Amino acid sequence: MGNNEVMNNNEVFAQLNNRVYEIQISRGDKMNALTDAMYGSLVEQLKYAENNNDVRVVFLRSDNKHFSAGNDLADFLETEFNPESNVVQFLLTLARFTKPIVCAVGGAAVGIGTTMLLHCDLVYAAENSKFSVPFIKLGLTPEGGSSVLLGKQCGVAKANDWLFTGRTFLAQEALDSGLVNNVFPDIEATWEEARNIAESLAKCSSSVLNETKALLKPDQDETVKTILKEAKIFAQCLKSEEAQAAFNAFLKR
Amino acid sequence: MGNNEVMNNNEVFAQLNNRVYEIQISRGDKMNALTDAMYGSLVEQLKYAENNNDVRVVFLRSDNKHFSAGNDLADFLETEFNPESNVVQFLLTLARFTKPIVCAVGGAAVGIGTTMLLHCDLVYAAENSKFSVPFIKLGLTPEGGSSVLLGKQCGVAKANDWLFTGRTFLAQEALDSGLVNNVFPDIEATWEEARNIAESLAKCSSSVLNETKALLKPDQDETVKTILKEAKIFAQCLKSEEAQAAFNAFLKR
Amino acid sequence: MGNNEVMNNNEVFAQLNNRVYEIQISRGDKMNALTDAMYGSLVEQLKYAENNNDVRVVFLRSDNKHFSAGNDLADFLETEFNPESNVVQFLLTLARFTKPIVCAVGGAAVGIGTTMLLHCDLVYAAENSKFSVPFIKLGLTPEGGSSVLLGKQCGVAKANDWLFTGRTFLAQEALDSGLVNNVFPDIEATWEEARNIAESLAKCSSSVLNETKALLKPDQDETVKTILKEAKIFAQCLKSEEAQAAFNAFLKR
Repeated sequence: MGNNEVMNNNEVFAQLNNRVYEIQISRGDKMNALTDAMYGSLVEQLKYAENNNDVRVVFLRSDNKHFSAGNDLADFLETEFNPESNVVQFLLTLARFTKPIVCAVGGAAVGIGTTMLLHCDLVYAAENSKFSVPFIKLGLTPEGGSSVLLGKQCGVAKANDWLFTGRTFLAQEALDSGLVNNVFPDIEATWEEARNIAESLAKCSSSVLNETKALLKPDQDETVKTILKEAKIFAQCLKSEEAQAAFNAFLKR
Repeated sequence: MGNNEVMNNNEVFAQLNNRVYEIQISRGDKMNALTDAMYGSLVEQLKYAENNNDVRVVFLRSDNKHFSAGNDLADFLETEFNPESNVVQFLLTLARFTKPIVCAVGGAAVGIGTTMLLHCDLVYAAENSKFSVPFIKLGLTPEGGSSVLLGKQCGVAKANDWLFTGRTFLAQEALDSGLVNNVFPDIEATWEEARNIAESLAKCSSSVLNETKALLKPDQDETVKTILKEAKIFAQCLKSEEAQAAFNAFLKR
Repeated sequence: MGNNEVMNNNEVFAQLNNRVYEIQISRGDKMNALTDAMYGSLVEQLKYAENNNDVRVVFLRSDNKHFSAGNDLADFLETEFNPESNVVQFLLTLARFTKPIVCAVGGAAVGIGTTMLLHCDLVYAAENSKFSVPFIKLGLTPEGGSSVLLGKQCGVAKANDWLFTGRTFLAQEALDSGLVNNVFPDIEATWEEARNIAESLAKCSSSVLNETKALLKPDQDETVKTILKEAKIFAQCLKSEEAQAAFNAFLKR
């Protein structure tokens, strides 16, 4: 097993067991809101997993009851947003990833906390999960490939509904619409089940796993283009008075 | 607000309130069967809404318990059908529309009364809604982009089932398969909810609304091609003995 | 009616009634596991149905309680697998077929017993049906177009789940996810309903049926490419130690 202690930090760390590379997001006091630095760490961890032959499957989760409240808005406003930003690089790395990714979700899964799931291969959710893609409420447009992938994965009706209204939806709706693969009573059971499935997959050969994923995701190049197209429009919206007012109102809460 | 009294007539009229352009189909004695003239009026209303900067969202509905029984067959047979026909222009205008369209449906939604929904962004239905795309029963082929969009929005199984059998399906099936976004007990509640959502959307900036829609519908050009391709085949079928016999049998009822 | 006694054999036979060409798979003692010879017969029967003007609709089923346990592995290992193989020709013939295909399923529908359903237009299943696409368990990759078509027809979540885990799923899940159009209490009721629908369709003109199918399946050429791409990867996996070990373990059971 590779020694990756250098990459691990307080907010994003990982370990390799039974050929499963388990990446944990750890910022429970902020409901795992993601900062530019954390996106950078996630990119490093994913690249390590991609290039390490001992890794067959990635298992992505948080180490607490929430998955992620999305972008840390205060941090986000301090960082120049463009296609080179860590957040976009994180999404592109996920979208291009060639090994299966299993993900476990619970509590808040807001914004990129929901859209990153669209790049995972198997997603398991705790019953208390609350999903939303409320870009419109912040004067923003869809990101993370969600404008195309939500419709493809969950149906046009749900994609339109969730993105136009920005409303929160629960685990059962996520399951019924195919955003997640199964729902478990609590986060511990969700982690256990997701880890079991990841370890079971990791018994298959790399070539079968990666060929299966490649066949199931023949549109990865298109997804990369969608993410970049969305990022360009998102960047323009960010500069609007509407978005600035929405951000300020949010931060003053 | 624009003065559009010239365009309004007994069978298709509209009004602008709170940046929502509410277009009503009003031919209750014929279950809102649509004539060539009505399609012409609908095109005019949509073009007005598209070009008027005071309009952010369109809300489409009828003013009575039915949505639309589809083409008025007697009128349809009197009109030359080709890609320039008002009915095709109506579908093309809907398919190319750049602002969000919210739609409320109840009672009969037959033929184009169902297929036009595929070009709306959010659709709400009353519990008594009855949908069908019975082209095959008239010796005809799918229109309005439905051959592609029904499968994309509601799944291949439902598209094949509905188009090959022509059977009627109810609000719950339409909801479960993603043809509509939600179902309400009666038409009044459906109108109220749809209007509320339209007005809520209309508080967002035009640019966020239109960019969100454009991202969610990247295939509008493909949809236009599908509508035109279907129209060509539909026109050939119309001339067949089979279709003529089916039409005559229907009109003699 | 054409005389096709020459083509009929003990394991694959057909008859034409009311313009419906009913093809039956008959190898009940082996749960209708399919051999190279049987794929060859199926191709012949389908080509006969395609070219016979008296045939408007194909009705595909087995003559016993199981649909098909998939490839006969012992026979499969004795046959060179390549794009010219009868099994691939069978899938390509199904994928290119221009007339509607109605299918009735019950009991085991394993591997190609599930993936062939994706090329049928209407599929009806008995409550006791058990579906699976367990390629990964044999060290193999998806075939029959399933890597693309399962996601398109049943949703990305189900495609990933079924193909990555290889697990068995039942009739209700197949119905809920759109793999089948309806479920009936037993195989006799399923056959009867499927035949009724096939005969009802066969009353429509060939041109309306075939134009409707062509409009609903505009991607047949893409599907052919997917089947050939999958077959190439499948052939490579077949030669792996992993697959050989899995096959041997299976055959020794």
